[in-house]
Amino acid sequence: MSVSAVKERLIAALGSDYVHDSHEMRLVYSYDATPGMQAMPDLVVMPGSTEEVQAIVRICNETKTPIVARGSGTNLSGGTCPVEAGVVLTFQRMNQIVELDEENLTLTVQPGVITQEIIEYVEAKELFYPPDPSSMKISTIGGNISENSGGLRGLKYGVTRDYVLGLTAVLANGEVIKTGGKLAKDVAGYDLTRLLVGSEGTLGIITEAILKLIPLPETKQTVLAIYEDIDKAAQSVSAIIANKIIPTTMEFLDQATIKVVEDYAHVGLPTDAGAVLLIEQDGAPEVVARDMEAITKLCTEMGATSVKRAGSEEEANALRSARRAALSACARLKPTTILEDATVPRSKIAEMVRAINEITAKYQLDICTFGHAGDGNLHPTFLTDARNKAEMHRVEQAFEEIFAKAIELGGTITGEHGVGAMKAPYLEWKIGESGIQVMRAIKTALDPNNILNPGKLFFEKKEVVS
Amino acid sequence: MSVSAVKERLIAALGSDYVHDSHEMRLVYSYDATPGMQAMPDLVVMPGSTEEVQAIVRICNETKTPIVARGSGTNLSGGTCPVEAGVVLTFQRMNQIVELDEENLTLTVQPGVITQEIIEYVEAKELFYPPDPSSMKISTIGGNISENSGGLRGLKYGVTRDYVLGLTAVLANGEVIKTGGKLAKDVAGYDLTRLLVGSEGTLGIITEAILKLIPLPETKQTVLAIYEDIDKAAQSVSAIIANKIIPTTMEFLDQATIKVVEDYAHVGLPTDAGAVLLIEQDGAPEVVARDMEAITKLCTEMGATSVKRAGSEEEANALRSARRAALSACARLKPTTILEDATVPRSKIAEMVRAINEITAKYQLDICTFGHAGDGNLHPTFLTDARNKAEMHRVEQAFEEIFAKAIELGGTITGEHGVGAMKAPYLEWKIGESGIQVMRAIKTALDPNNILNPGKLFFEKKEVVS
Repeated sequence: MSVSAVKERLIAALGSDYVHDSHEMRLVYSYDATPGMQAMPDLVVMPGSTEEVQAIVRICNETKTPIVARGSGTNLSGGTCPVEAGVVLTFQRMNQIVELDEENLTLTVQPGVITQEIIEYVEAKELFYPPDPSSMKISTIGGNISENSGGLRGLKYGVTRDYVLGLTAVLANGEVIKTGGKLAKDVAGYDLTRLLVGSEGTLGIITEAILKLIPLPETKQTVLAIYEDIDKAAQSVSAIIANKIIPTTMEFLDQATIKVVEDYAHVGLPTDAGAVLLIEQDGAPEVVARDMEAITKLCTEMGATSVKRAGSEEEANALRSARRAALSACARLKPTTILEDATVPRSKIAEMVRAINEITAKYQLDICTFGHAGDGNLHPTFLTDARNKAEMHRVEQAFEEIFAKAIELGGTITGEHGVGAMKAPYLEWKIGESGIQVMRAIKTALDPNNILNPGKLFFEKKEVVS
Repeated sequence: MSVSAVKERLIAALGSDYVHDSHEMRLVYSYDATPGMQAMPDLVVMPGSTEEVQAIVRICNETKTPIVARGSGTNLSGGTCPVEAGVVLTFQRMNQIVELDEENLTLTVQPGVITQEIIEYVEAKELFYPPDPSSMKISTIGGNISENSGGLRGLKYGVTRDYVLGLTAVLANGEVIKTGGKLAKDVAGYDLTRLLVGSEGTLGIITEAILKLIPLPETKQTVLAIYEDIDKAAQSVSAIIANKIIPTTMEFLDQATIKVVEDYAHVGLPTDAGAVLLIEQDGAPEVVARDMEAITKLCTEMGATSVKRAGSEEEANALRSARRAALSACARLKPTTILEDATVPRSKIAEMVRAINEITAKYQLDICTFGHAGDGNLHPTFLTDARNKAEMHRVEQAFEEIFAKAIELGGTITGEHGVGAMKAPYLEWKIGESGIQVMRAIKTALDPNNILNPGKLFFEKKEVVS
């Protein structure tokens, strides 16, 4: 069916205000935060309800039109780039907090709510939604769920998956499923909730979510530990865990990142240091005080040249914001910033950082490495220029070697950014041929016409005729 | 292919010591802990490695022979009863703790390890594996994973799913997949780890698991709150949560259960009380002391006639063991004990218990109700006699009404025991027709010959020709 016929049917379902095909609108939704990826959709639609999402999906399924559902597009894996054209579905009109249930400690939300809005909304009630991706100021909860976003508090509190209790989703055939509920325990059949979480919009379109909340920790303390080299920082991470302390956050910045961030944020980071750890602990005041004393002692024993406690919440917040701004700070230096999230077992961080530096030197590239040291989730970030084809080719080769090293160390190709289009060629390295077969079988069973975010997760080997 | 031909092929793969078809052996594996279910398998096999499991699965897949993988069979849903005959696969020979990794806080285990062995093993190292199903003294970790077992500590610490980081599993085609790893974050493709957890052996056979450990809480305190009626107990549960306290455990016993348990365990339960709550909190000493003071105050305010703190760990353990023995205690009174696990949002517990009592009176049955009040997971337990057909029919009707009420209150048909064969007819009540379609599609995609634990989860409507 022609695009204009699909458009007419969509207008009949949604009204003409919410179906767009202007060049400007298509351009706006032709890319996401991933560098070097752009593809024009044919149409942009803005449903206002689950029923309207159903209508869109039915039309697309009948006409075999691709649908890319998206939030703010802050994923860094090309997950929401409409690589096979078709319809982009956005959730601006479905951006309501539906219900706070203080008895069951749940929050019901529509997919278009901004993550930070959720966090602030529940904190005002002394409740806590822990997942805090660096993009939380602009990312949507629907995107977070579809990508199973992580964040800085993942070490102690887990990731988005651990806070999704139930979902309403529209399947490729237009049917609605409701999974889970306001339930701490539910084993009625396969865990479709967690199958949808992190499925990157390829198995269903999430239209409502029930989130789990926990009580807000009473207090929080922040320290900055400064090191001459990465090994001592990594040893500190291991020593803290070995002492049975699980901090809320243990963020790592290498020397290059420290310089870039300080130049951007002016928070007093030591630009001559080899590495820093930003460590936070939250909880009851007595426990936080005791843990922080132990953490300070352990960091010093492992060779930190200084361990400074943030003197106020403002100072702590400045440090946290500086860390969250690492990607933006890097992006100032070169036209193109490519950030990855190879992840390794915590015990392998120092080895992984050394390998990243060796690979970077080998390919003569500029890199900043930072990330979540507590959970082994690193963000090696190449500063480059997409117009320099030769350098971009070396970046690609370097990333392949980084992924291979992460796998060799028992890690994964992506800790929190998703596979999307960018990492599809490498998924098999992590999960093997049999894993790919299982995932493809699930995809085909649930979306036989391959309309839901096609071109993602699975790599289509192109036949090369020479 | 004939059973004897399958047997010969299995003997060729495993050796004759590990392939059994004696009447005694088949009888032993013809049932599990579920009352009223028995079916004879043709063969019982005992693999010693993942490779041997692969060999078994390949033979069964080629010959379309059902395989029921099982641990100790403590599920209460008929999940491991070989209802379509075929092969029962047991893990007695795969019962090793493979590796404790103290740096990454993981424990790698084979499926046949007893849950309590894991708990004791890691606690000796001051580490903690929280999931503690009541059956933990005899249940295996493989069974716990396949059923996504809960337990008494689920309110604060979550369930088995939350502690499985990676799995090795044999698929229906004999291929091996390895999911996850020693990784706090991993979003490489669909979450196959959590799809396998709770899939009741219908999607793959788990042959190794990487479990997440956390630091062992420093201290624990236990109180017993005594009430004249269930409403005051339920209000106490709500008040504690509303005060932002999440106890480790909040177990509820109704009057009938109190009497039965006290008669069995002699731990000093007040047999004239309408209900008791067994509440535990663990953590740092200061926090536990403060929480317990607040809990005592709140229970008293809500109308507890007494709130007694266990004076010693022995006394606390006696109370805990008494609670865990509730099912065994009930089983002494009547020939047949049928325990269910309808689960509702925490705020609906009192309403659900009242409904259970009304339904029980309507059908003139004997019932004890106990369970995990903190997470809304109740265990209404009918004391009956399988030989009394009329009464058994009434029990069935009563359970149908209980399930319907749980669903009406936003709950589920099973919080932690699984669907198995027993609850297959009711699964659609929870997840709807579209949910069943999705689950069937996944099952068919991964196990096209339906050899993995057939007859479970999905209800086959029998055509009745009149």
